[in-house]
Amino acid sequence: MASELKKPLLPGHVIGILGGGQLGQMLAVSASRLGFICHILDPNPNCPAAKVCAKHVVAEYSDLDAIESFSKSCDVITYEFENVPAATAKSASQYGVLYPSSDALNVAQDRLVEKSFIRDVAKVPVTDFLDVTSLDSLRTSVARLGMPCILKTRRLGYDGKGQFVIKKEPDIQSAWQALNGQAAILEAFVPFVREVSVIAARNPFGAFASYPLIENIHRNQILHTSTAPAKDDNGSAQKLAKNIMDALGYIGVMATEFFELEDGTLIVNEIAPRVHNSGHWTQNAGCIDQFELHIRAICGWPLGSTRPLHTVEMTNLLGPEINDWNEYAQKAHTFIHMYGKSDPRIGRKMGHINRILNISE
Amino acid sequence: MASELKKPLLPGHVIGILGGGQLGQMLAVSASRLGFICHILDPNPNCPAAKVCAKHVVAEYSDLDAIESFSKSCDVITYEFENVPAATAKSASQYGVLYPSSDALNVAQDRLVEKSFIRDVAKVPVTDFLDVTSLDSLRTSVARLGMPCILKTRRLGYDGKGQFVIKKEPDIQSAWQALNGQAAILEAFVPFVREVSVIAARNPFGAFASYPLIENIHRNQILHTSTAPAKDDNGSAQKLAKNIMDALGYIGVMATEFFELEDGTLIVNEIAPRVHNSGHWTQNAGCIDQFELHIRAICGWPLGSTRPLHTVEMTNLLGPEINDWNEYAQKAHTFIHMYGKSDPRIGRKMGHINRILNISE
Repeated sequence: MASELKKPLLPGHVIGILGGGQLGQMLAVSASRLGFICHILDPNPNCPAAKVCAKHVVAEYSDLDAIESFSKSCDVITYEFENVPAATAKSASQYGVLYPSSDALNVAQDRLVEKSFIRDVAKVPVTDFLDVTSLDSLRTSVARLGMPCILKTRRLGYDGKGQFVIKKEPDIQSAWQALNGQAAILEAFVPFVREVSVIAARNPFGAFASYPLIENIHRNQILHTSTAPAKDDNGSAQKLAKNIMDALGYIGVMATEFFELEDGTLIVNEIAPRVHNSGHWTQNAGCIDQFELHIRAICGWPLGSTRPLHTVEMTNLLGPEINDWNEYAQKAHTFIHMYGKSDPRIGRKMGHINRILNISE
Repeated sequence: MASELKKPLLPGHVIGILGGGQLGQMLAVSASRLGFICHILDPNPNCPAAKVCAKHVVAEYSDLDAIESFSKSCDVITYEFENVPAATAKSASQYGVLYPSSDALNVAQDRLVEKSFIRDVAKVPVTDFLDVTSLDSLRTSVARLGMPCILKTRRLGYDGKGQFVIKKEPDIQSAWQALNGQAAILEAFVPFVREVSVIAARNPFGAFASYPLIENIHRNQILHTSTAPAKDDNGSAQKLAKNIMDALGYIGVMATEFFELEDGTLIVNEIAPRVHNSGHWTQNAGCIDQFELHIRAICGWPLGSTRPLHTVEMTNLLGPEINDWNEYAQKAHTFIHMYGKSDPRIGRKMGHINRILNISE
């Protein structure tokens, strides 16, 4: 039986974060602003979060001895990425309080489990999908879902990695080979008119809070801009996100990504059991930001106001785009966030800018 | 000859901060957000900034060996308090780039030098003052300035410490004794109608930026609230602050505190060569905050927008008031900032809240 928080965690306690990338960096800053002490576990000694935490344990996520002593030193443990190994999550739950729980991780780590849970347990619409276990079953599944469709690895995909579009017959064989034996799921193509997401939080004592709807634009399968509040927000996406979070007994911030069809129907694309790139705009919107919201949620605090006072557009700075900082530094109502990564390789998330839209210069 | 920055410092470089209190903590967070690596020097291993910096050198400010190696490891050095010893500032200037310069420190560390400089060099009005070197000269000075007047130590005063009000004849002797031999200055009492301040910045390449006027309310000589933009801001305080900063060749954020008389006349009370408690409201005002403004200034960056989008009231949380965090966490558009200090003794600055005023709930 995993441990649970019985009452709000007081400032001065220790929050542990598995993963020290930019999400860990921004979580650590929020934790310290609320008076908490933040410990990070990440195998990279130069990870972005290392420079803003009280303690950095340099260890592999699979190092169960390190995980045990790390968990024992923390009053609550969280993570910035959904691919925390199952044994690691189990150890963290055993020696400490892990939020979101390992149940949430189990669901979110595997596209097949995730989509089945959302459709069958939370009763929320998802893309049509089929389990694929062989080349033969892939052929049958393509026939059932129709082309185009998308073959995806069940695990470890992000930013379009591990995804293979099948548009015509010969793509089936090449997609199967590209999988290289990894377990996979076939998803129907969704003719969406826009991509939107919801960032919401639950705390252990029943509080729920959501930001307004977010509109996302991807380029080369990587998030390019997020703008919020999105137009035509009737609140239904937030209700669907809440249904999923309630079904999971979820604690912390969760992101739910949707496809929106022409008639307004919302179909869940995927969930992320963590703070999310499409929520970075909250840092300069005049409300509690998603990083602080997550810290508040996992510490059992009141969640605070998630109502933004501005319309904000977040733009990712990928690879060498980070070198344009000087241009952004001169613009009014434009806020720069850099992660301090040294190698600006193509496509790598190096930073982002938040621009307040509803202001005259 | 002290070193100077020849061009803007690029992200990835190292910023050193002398002093790791809450001001250092908030400076370190801003530096990391712009992609800089932050080193702190502070004798207290548990100082607030220790938990949000890449490196914490635990050493006394007077330890010149530590200062030398610290300065050599940093690309630019700054400080969060004006009482940096002269020899320390000299060493930092010799082995690195120190902003604001040791000239600014020399002026700001000594009330007599400061007031003389502001009146005679910057040509900006200050409180009437007289140098006091003996009990006899104190008696003569009190006769000249009239009672009430205030005897202040020339050095090391803050939050009303080292200040003795002389209201009647017998106070002269007791104030002199309380000084205990410290060099002092006698200041006339100013019949002010309100206390206001200006936070402004200059960078090494001539850029200047100022926030709007701030209205400050003190309790027991400690800042209680700051509200900005203040009413009746005609821009004259910002002009006076700029005159002082130009006269000093100042680089970084500087605070100028004024007394405002009934007819609107502004008289400088004191300057602080650093980010300042009366500028904390900038963190939640929708503009670049004073901590990032200071980092931008000392790194030679464009200063960015200092125009707030909201009226914000900052309230200090002193001592046990920090225990009211739960109440503030439930309020809309209220932002909590805690420093993580463990001992909430009476009057100690433990945190602050920023409340956006111009919003309906």
